[in-house]
Amino acid sequence: MSKIFFTVGPTQLYPTVKKHILQALKEDIGSTSHRSEQFQKIYSETASSLKELMCIPDDFQIFFLGSATEAMERIIQNCVKEHSFHFVNGAFSKRFFEISRQLGKNSQQIESAAGDGFNFREISVPEKAEMICLTQNETSTGTSIPMKEISKLRKRYPDKLIAVDIVSSAPYAAIDFESVDCAFFSVQKGFGLPAGLGVLIVNRNCLRKSEELEKNGVSTGSFHSFSSLRKYAESNQTSETPNVLGIYLLGKVARDLFEYGIERIRKETDAKAKMIYGFFEKNTEYSPFISDEKNRSKTIAVINTPDGSRNIIENMKKNNIFVSTGYKENKKTQIRIANFPAHSLSDTEYLLQELSKL
Amino acid sequence: MSKIFFTVGPTQLYPTVKKHILQALKEDIGSTSHRSEQFQKIYSETASSLKELMCIPDDFQIFFLGSATEAMERIIQNCVKEHSFHFVNGAFSKRFFEISRQLGKNSQQIESAAGDGFNFREISVPEKAEMICLTQNETSTGTSIPMKEISKLRKRYPDKLIAVDIVSSAPYAAIDFESVDCAFFSVQKGFGLPAGLGVLIVNRNCLRKSEELEKNGVSTGSFHSFSSLRKYAESNQTSETPNVLGIYLLGKVARDLFEYGIERIRKETDAKAKMIYGFFEKNTEYSPFISDEKNRSKTIAVINTPDGSRNIIENMKKNNIFVSTGYKENKKTQIRIANFPAHSLSDTEYLLQELSKL
Repeated sequence: MSKIFFTVGPTQLYPTVKKHILQALKEDIGSTSHRSEQFQKIYSETASSLKELMCIPDDFQIFFLGSATEAMERIIQNCVKEHSFHFVNGAFSKRFFEISRQLGKNSQQIESAAGDGFNFREISVPEKAEMICLTQNETSTGTSIPMKEISKLRKRYPDKLIAVDIVSSAPYAAIDFESVDCAFFSVQKGFGLPAGLGVLIVNRNCLRKSEELEKNGVSTGSFHSFSSLRKYAESNQTSETPNVLGIYLLGKVARDLFEYGIERIRKETDAKAKMIYGFFEKNTEYSPFISDEKNRSKTIAVINTPDGSRNIIENMKKNNIFVSTGYKENKKTQIRIANFPAHSLSDTEYLLQELSKL
Repeated sequence: MSKIFFTVGPTQLYPTVKKHILQALKEDIGSTSHRSEQFQKIYSETASSLKELMCIPDDFQIFFLGSATEAMERIIQNCVKEHSFHFVNGAFSKRFFEISRQLGKNSQQIESAAGDGFNFREISVPEKAEMICLTQNETSTGTSIPMKEISKLRKRYPDKLIAVDIVSSAPYAAIDFESVDCAFFSVQKGFGLPAGLGVLIVNRNCLRKSEELEKNGVSTGSFHSFSSLRKYAESNQTSETPNVLGIYLLGKVARDLFEYGIERIRKETDAKAKMIYGFFEKNTEYSPFISDEKNRSKTIAVINTPDGSRNIIENMKKNNIFVSTGYKENKKTQIRIANFPAHSLSDTEYLLQELSKL
């Protein structure tokens, strides 16, 4: 029996990926020059498919980077002169904050207690903050920030830029791009692709801010500064030789997901999430880490395993089912289960059935 | 008939690549977690195979990045406080210099006349320069710097760091790692792999310099600072989710090249280079751009095409042979031909035979 990966990313490949890789070999995508018309077509098709799938307005630009972590770095370099403000609800939002400090910014954070959400109404973003950074879906803790809270922040702080990490919620999360200036994800999560590609989606406010910083002599980085990314993106190219195969595959899978139907994907994700959380709530040996349902991620379920995670993970492996350990300090006491479009209802049923036997 | 890519990179895939991709699909490499033991094994095997193939001493560390362009950025951020000195002999060495300026360094360059080599004996590297940056093989102009000149620089300037771009000469170029502190390449050239992975090889001097900068409060970047890269590399991991498939494939192809024999590859590359340059020297309609044979790249032949490059390129395409245009301003008046391990003797003969019919 073939393996099923419920790991939180890299994860199960989307069912069409193998077919697209074989087609890419036939079409010599691995030999395709990043300065060729063929590549420009690939770039343009992938960007269009993403825009259609995720309802990204036309005036946003799509940049291809090495990883989502690189996206954090490029956003801070290009959109923050001195101060960014970070909502920290886990290890990846913490990383976003730390990157801003490592880049010499005088940034601030507000940290939620582990597993809790934020009390947004009681939080004031400092006046000096140029950008508000949020991790909409925390892969480390399984916490999710409701989109409406981000929209409220937009209304309260219309002059600040808003950056949103959607690494493990895209394309499931319905992002309101009116409330967001930039968003980013990587392909090895919800898109079910091999790792090695980050996607950064930015609007004109971000590009303008980057220009302003450059004019004032602030270093916005080099080959992946927004001005460089933009210059090349305008002719569907990249500043350096990118992961051409990765961009090709992302375009194909985005198209497949669009054709399958984003609303259908959302409904199925909700249904599978209900099954997963329901199973662990009923089962007294486990409990979902996030107690408040409104903060629970639909795509990353983090489960407390008081008797240790190792036994569960090893036993599941024997059935060719792979789940993730908890993140870092929770490695031994939690498991994490991904719920992406690549995970079918029947695979999820099989996972829960095998878990119930333990 | 299948296509043959003599383009300068992305280029012809090494003959075993397809087989390794199919095997990777079987082994679920696309779903392999970058925090798993399996990945640590992949990282370690790829690093070992590269070290064996390229005779890299054990005390060098191998880091995986998004591209060679990123390697330039990380080197400058981590090894240069204020001044680097750049030997500029084409567009990519120029890029290395420009990146250092964009990062706010007060760097200097010496530029050779287009297609000429440097008169090393007459060049003095400024005392304040902390690092000397050289592009051993310029993909834009087809100029090559003999390794012995780099070794002489090492003797003249034992206290300066030396960084060498071997993007389009690895693994052919026999790098004397006693004379080099860091070197970098990308996989879509001499290794004949799909693009999307940069490899940075650094010694302890570079790591020490980076530590020293950090101690003095200089920002060395963030997730790809040398201290972060080193911390993870020590347990065969990466700071962010990397191109796992790319690292896997690189290890496999490095192993294949090692087994084929690096000396054999070098002899064959020399023989093919002799054929290619010989053909264009005999043919009065063309001429090699680099007139002095000792500066001519063996892996990238740049050829003047006084009657224009377009006709040649289009005619060759009809025979399923792909060669590159000249770089940027030379697009219309030059062609570039790659001579990598993926290009067999018979493919090269076929290329020249078809060219002779024009």
